[in-house]
Parts: sequence; C-alpha cells; structure tokens
Amino acid sequence: MARNIERMRAKAAGLRVGLRPHVKTAKCLEVIERMTGGLRGPVTVSTLREAERLAEAGYTDIVYAVGLTPNKFDRARALRRDGVDLKVILDSAETAAALAGSGSADDSPVPVLIEIDSDGHRAGVKPHDGALLGAIADRLTGGACLAGVLTHAGESYSARSDEALRDFATLERDGAVAAAETLRALGHGAEIVSIGSTPSVLFSEDMSGVTEARAGVYVFFDLVMAGIGVCAVDDIALSVLASVNTVQAERGRYVVDAGWTAMSRDRGTASQPVDQGYGLVCDLEGNVYPDLIMTEANQEHGAIALRPGSTAELPKLAVGDLVRILPNHACATGSQHEAYLVTDEARAAVVDRWLRFGGW
Amino acid sequence: MARNIERMRAKAAGLRVGLRPHVKTAKCLEVIERMTGGLRGPVTVSTLREAERLAEAGYTDIVYAVGLTPNKFDRARALRRDGVDLKVILDSAETAAALAGSGSADDSPVPVLIEIDSDGHRAGVKPHDGALLGAIADRLTGGACLAGVLTHAGESYSARSDEALRDFATLERDGAVAAAETLRALGHGAEIVSIGSTPSVLFSEDMSGVTEARAGVYVFFDLVMAGIGVCAVDDIALSVLASVNTVQAERGRYVVDAGWTAMSRDRGTASQPVDQGYGLVCDLEGNVYPDLIMTEANQEHGAIALRPGSTAELPKLAVGDLVRILPNHACATGSQHEAYLVTDEARAAVVDRWLRFGGW
Repeated sequence: MARNIERMRAKAAGLRVGLRPHVKTAKCLEVIERMTGGLRGPVTVSTLREAERLAEAGYTDIVYAVGLTPNKFDRARALRRDGVDLKVILDSAETAAALAGSGSADDSPVPVLIEIDSDGHRAGVKPHDGALLGAIADRLTGGACLAGVLTHAGESYSARSDEALRDFATLERDGAVAAAETLRALGHGAEIVSIGSTPSVLFSEDMSGVTEARAGVYVFFDLVMAGIGVCAVDDIALSVLASVNTVQAERGRYVVDAGWTAMSRDRGTASQPVDQGYGLVCDLEGNVYPDLIMTEANQEHGAIALRPGSTAELPKLAVGDLVRILPNHACATGSQHEAYLVTDEARAAVVDRWLRFGGW
Repeated sequence: MARNIERMRAKAAGLRVGLRPHVKTAKCLEVIERMTGGLRGPVTVSTLREAERLAEAGYTDIVYAVGLTPNKFDRARALRRDGVDLKVILDSAETAAALAGSGSADDSPVPVLIEIDSDGHRAGVKPHDGALLGAIADRLTGGACLAGVLTHAGESYSARSDEALRDFATLERDGAVAAAETLRALGHGAEIVSIGSTPSVLFSEDMSGVTEARAGVYVFFDLVMAGIGVCAVDDIALSVLASVNTVQAERGRYVVDAGWTAMSRDRGTASQPVDQGYGLVCDLEGNVYPDLIMTEANQEHGAIALRPGSTAELPKLAVGDLVRILPNHACATGSQHEAYLVTDEARAAVVDRWLRFGGW
C-alpha cells in the first residue's frame, strides 16, 4: 500500500497537478492519512457520511463527487457551517436553482463544480453544451456559487491497452478543460478543473489546464486494474484470508469459508481477457497459485479450483489450510468488511487493525 | 415481514416439524426475536460471530451450519463453556478426528451434525456413503459426539416450477433421512435430522423422519424467491430508498444515488425468465412501476430504465424524487447496510431503526 501511495503521489507531482485522493475505496482514517501524506489535505468523498467522518477527523477541503439532491442540502450546509470547505457537484439547471434558493442569509454560498460527461459513462453535461453550462452557471447565485468543473472518465476501466488508457486520459482532460473554457468565455469563473480515475491519472502525459486529479483504487489496486495493465498482481495490497473446510479431490476443488459476504459479488474481470472468477488464490505469503481462482461464491462458502482449460496442477491443500484471495474490485471487497488487518511487508504477522466506516 | 414470519411458522407447525430460523439474512436481534416468536428458541447461524452475538442476547440453542475448521475449535468451545448448546457441522473424518482430539478434559463433547450432500450443491457426504458416514461417526468420541445429520438443498433456488420445488423438498428430506438411517444401522445415534431452505420447506408436503427445518430468506423474501414462485413481489419486505439525481430523458433513464454499495452486485435474477437487473423499482408506497428496473450499478450510482423490450411508459420522475428498489437477494442487499429503517404497514412513516451485525 505504501508503494502504491508513493507511486500516485510522484505521478501527480510529475504532472504538476494537485492530488485529491478519493476515500471511497479505503473508507478508513489510517489509510486516508497516508494517502494525504499526513497533512489532512484535499480529499474526495462519495457519500455525505464519508464527508462527516472526515470532518470529525479534521479534514476541511472536501469534494462530494456524487450529484447532490435536494434532500441532502441541509447536511451539506451543516458541514460548511462546521468549517468544512465542502464543494458539491450537479448537472442540471433545476438542481442549481434549488440549491441557490435554499439555505439562510447567514450561510455562505455552496461552491459548485458542474459535472461534465467526458466519455458518455454516466452523468454530466457535455463539454461543449454551452447552453446548458451557461444555464446552470447563471443560476448559481444566492445560496450557491460556481467553483469550476469536475469529470470522471469511468469508461477508462474498460480500456484494453496502454494506448487506449492514454486516449482516455486525454479525453478526460480535454472534456474538463473545454467545459471550463466554455464557462470562462461566457463570463463565468471556473477556477477548479478536477479530473480523475486511477487509470487515467496514471496514464496521463499532460495535465495542462487541469488543477487537480482524483483517484482512489490505486491505494490497494485489484485484479481489474491488473487486468487492464495499470498495476501488477504483486501490487495488490488487499486480500481475504480464508480456510479450507472441505476437500473435494474428485471434483478437483476445495470449499473455503469465504463467500460473497467476504469477496463481494463483483465479477469485474468477467469481461477481461483473463477471467479471475471471484478472485485469484495465493498462499499465506501472497504467492499466487497458478490458475487457482474462486469459481463459485455462496454466502459463506467459496469453491476454489483451477481456471477452465488450465494445465496447471491443483495444489495440495488440507482442511484448515489458509489461503489469501485477491479481489476483483478493492472497493467492493473492502466494503464487505468492518476493518482491515494490517500485515508487515512479508505478510507474516498482523501488526494492526484499522476500522472502516460505511453508511450514507 | 410479520406476514412472512407467520406463513413460515404455520407451515412448519402444519408439517409437525421444529423450526430453526436462519439468522444470516436478517442479522438483527429485533428481527430474530420475531422469527423465534419472542422465545429465543432454536436458531441457525452461518458465522461464529453471529453465534457470539446471539449468545450475548440470550440464545442458547444454536446450530453453526458452515463446515467447522480447526482454527475455529477454540471459539466454538468457548461458546459452549458459556452455556450455549452450540452444534457444529463437518463432512470429513479428518476434521472429526481433529475436533475429537481437541479441547480439555473439562470441556463437554461438541455435538456434531454430519453435513449431507442431498443435491450435489456444495459440500457434504453422499446420503448412501455408509463407509464415510461410519468413518466420521467412529471418530466422534472424546471431544466430540454425534448428534445427527444436516442438509441444505441449495440447488432448490434454481427450481423453475412448483413441481420442481416439491421434488427438491423430497430430495432434501430423503437424503437426510437416508443418511440418519444409515448411521443408525451402523449402531450410531442420529437424533437430529435437520433440513432446509426457504423454497424446500415452503413446498414440502411431508417431513416424516425430519426433526427440524431451517430457513432464513423467507423473513424478507426477494426477487429471486418471487421469480421461482415462492412468494409474490408484494411479499418482499426489504427495499432500498434512493433519490433521483440526474434525469436523462434522451437516454430514457434516470440516475439515482443508490449503486452496488446499496443493492449489492447480486444478479440472481439474471438466469431467471424475468431478469430484474439490480432490482425492481417502486414508488415510495411500494407500488411497482411496470418494467422499471435498475439496469446499471456503480459504487454510489444506479441507472434506472425500462426493461429491454418493454412497451410500458417511462414514469415521469424529477431530481430529488424518491423511489424504492426491491432487491434480487435479500441476504446480499441487507449485508450492505448497518441498520434497517422500519416502516409502518403503509410504508409511509419510519417507526424504528434496527441495527444489523456483521463480521466473522
């Protein structure tokens, strides 16, 4: 984990862009402290609960990067009254008008980043839709003010080559910068230009016009990231420890006491060239067993077996043997657990236990 | 929920079989109290953590229905020393011998149910494998003793007709009873004959030879259960409340603030005749919007749109509107949350908040 954090820090520094780590993967104060270099610097959150937990821990520069809805205006303003510089995102003139008209005279205006759709992934305003950008910006008066633009190239997770990853990085940057320039041409200030996803930041070669990069999953990495070439399997810093509880030699498999409650149901590698099932199996020290994957997941049971078509030999395991299972998606597997057991570098000893937070 | 609990209670009473509710779906003391009729009667757990939480709450008759591994012997014995009649399951002579040889002279023997594989679903001894049944039973001396047999027809979740469900119920009962009789013929006592899954219990017509039935998901039901005909959609007692945060009329969809962290990644209806995506969308009162399903799930975002091929009309929703989303799999969706918000029967008011417990 420490190596992954340093890699992203150095990458952002090299691109001369601010780094605003996303806390949604880790949801853990000890991890976030390391992601921010101990400085309680800028962070990104995906829920107001995350923002509230970070505010309690002394973080004051927070972007809430999921479209704000009217039923959350009060909680967002409460955070700002408590001294947090919370910035929010939205992508419609209706929400902008509603936010502008909310709050009391004593409240400071809520800074808004207009969400930009740089790759057709999910939500946001098209970068060149000057009419809508202008309509939103025009409404950000009174209880709200325009602070800039934000985009997330979520489609970059489906990239299949270094070139495609570089293209997504360019697409994301160009979309955000174009939207900011459109707003400026209309006479609006758009100070913050925020972009990011782990793949697009790590494959970016030029961040001109961008003020900050957001990324989260890099802290642990996972099999999906390894599958698109953003990290090596050996960089994955999160695993689930499981015990063999049934040996089924005649079926060429073992049953272990980790199911979807431990791994999640995420099958993010199913559409990749190498399907890792519900996870790739390692020994206790983290050495990968060739082609050994979790092929089935029930609530508290998993089946581990060789990947279909494998010519590798099934390792000899006995009831009670421990294995580590690397996750498809670190965010999803992490969210199934209430704490991380922290190991030393050799993964030989547990040296600490760090609580996660959840909820909304 | 109250209606679902009463339905299962009446069914077990009619079959003259004991009911041992499985707590893995709800993981919530207030729900479990209602499943056991306020009597703190027999319960089934899927983790030792569940057993420990129930023991603290005064439950003393607990079956831990996931194969025991040697690294859990100490915790199992600790529960028994605290006055809990904890029964465990295993399916190998090796584990039986290890358990028999563990513990101290002061410990009472751990009662063991031999896990029986009635339908090829996952783990267990084949019902007619007298050699293995005998070998396990022979080893259950000293620190362990034979208490009976247990099976779970997990394949019943894939049934597609009432007849198939009745067949699974028969298969499950016949397998468990045959294994118990095999053990008795070998001179072993096999007092407890434990079977169960929600579909097989609700479709059972004869429990002769069975002493107890286990079931869990019936407490909430879900779209998978509705899809196989075990309940109606209107019986589903669990939903996720979400807000619309982006209207995408041109794409025929809405984005809501509930993603896989709220629904889980379970796609259990994908293999059923009607694929419900990540969930079926209702209004706040629980009235289903025809064909409106969650078609995509990101971490904190979901897309809701009409089912492919639907001729229904997309309902008019606006930013901030609230919808309820019914889950594919109640166990999986429940496990994404730290508490249940309890509504009145009209789903109009939240009347209580009940905490869940998790972990292992």
